Amino acid sequence: MGGKFISFEGPEGGGKSTHAAALAETLRAEGKTVLVTREPGGTRLAELIRGLVREELDDPPVTRAEVLLFLAARAQVVANVIKPALARGEWVLCDRFSDSTFAYQGYGRGIDVQLLKELNDFATEGLVPDLTILLDVPPEVSRERIAERQRATSTSADRIEAAGEAFHKRLREGFLALAKAEPERFAVIDSSGDPAEVDRMIREAVRGS
Amino acid sequence: MGGKFISFEGPEGGGKSTHAAALAETLRAEGKTVLVTREPGGTRLAELIRGLVREELDDPPVTRAEVLLFLAARAQVVANVIKPALARGEWVLCDRFSDSTFAYQGYGRGIDVQLLKELNDFATEGLVPDLTILLDVPPEVSRERIAERQRATSTSADRIEAAGEAFHKRLREGFLALAKAEPERFAVIDSSGDPAEVDRMIREAVRGS
Repeated sequence: MGGKFISFEGPEGGGKSTHAAALAETLRAEGKTVLVTREPGGTRLAELIRGLVREELDDPPVTRAEVLLFLAARAQVVANVIKPALARGEWVLCDRFSDSTFAYQGYGRGIDVQLLKELNDFATEGLVPDLTILLDVPPEVSRERIAERQRATSTSADRIEAAGEAFHKRLREGFLALAKAEPERFAVIDSSGDPAEVDRMIREAVRGS
Repeated sequence: MGGKFISFEGPEGGGKSTHAAALAETLRAEGKTVLVTREPGGTRLAELIRGLVREELDDPPVTRAEVLLFLAARAQVVANVIKPALARGEWVLCDRFSDSTFAYQGYGRGIDVQLLKELNDFATEGLVPDLTILLDVPPEVSRERIAERQRATSTSADRIEAAGEAFHKRLREGFLALAKAEPERFAVIDSSGDPAEVDRMIREAVRGS
């Protein structure tokens, strides 16, 4: 039996990378081969693109350029990493995928979501996750955890993390709307509580998928 | 009267940047304010993207990523350079624009041209040049001039320049097909002859546009 393609989505501070790593460990303990990747990133080119988007430039990307850069990184990761791994029968866990584009640049920045879906289909060649774990946290928890991480690592908020409260509210509502539109693909998990309990709910969603 | 937006297109070695510079000089001598830009490039972000596309990476961009990177650079230049200049009433001369995407990634690499036009419309917000100068050269002249430039600058062919003969043939045919489909926008000029004569034909096309 082949592996599954599972994406982790949600606002910043929902613990996507931590919980993806925990799920990978569980799956590996069951003898599965698991590839964990992140977006934007996952290949040398995509990491360079990630740098462009997050870097403080004199001319930060306009929204449309930002969309296209994220999609370029996604096209590269899909073609060179995700599809080959799935073809080898491996499991692929991805920290952010298409739904982040729809939530951030669609619901967050006001680009037509249907148009974004068409552009995204070009980048992914139609690849859709088998299961999407939406780690939902209220905006105040998200903000608090971002601030905590910044204190811990002495970094400043990047361009997207620093966007205002209204943006983060639209973002969360966007993710929830996406989940509501495709209930068979999404598992919405409240990530504001005990991390071990969140991991348990994720394992359950994976078993049920 | 406002300025015009003129793009220079065609295969490598057609002298686009040289002839764009000559036209800019002519227009400036007539008292016009002229902005000359190039694609991909023209802003710091777009130049960084240009670097990504032309750099020798372990994972060179797959065709879809290449398309999206060029479009990201274009979105940035349109929003931050070309549209503001046109709004100020300036003339804008651009070394490559949308037609290069249709020719290179469409006719050259086999991506559906209609789909590319839709993606491109997103990047340009529908901005189309008032006039497109297609500097046409036969593949053998193109190859010869590329080789000359490489000897002169001791550089090696980049990824796109190094593509095979069949690619360059499709590319030229693609440019000519685009011109044929929009004769009112295109001026096709044979660029294999005397550069001064080419400049004269370009000035004539601009006066007639």
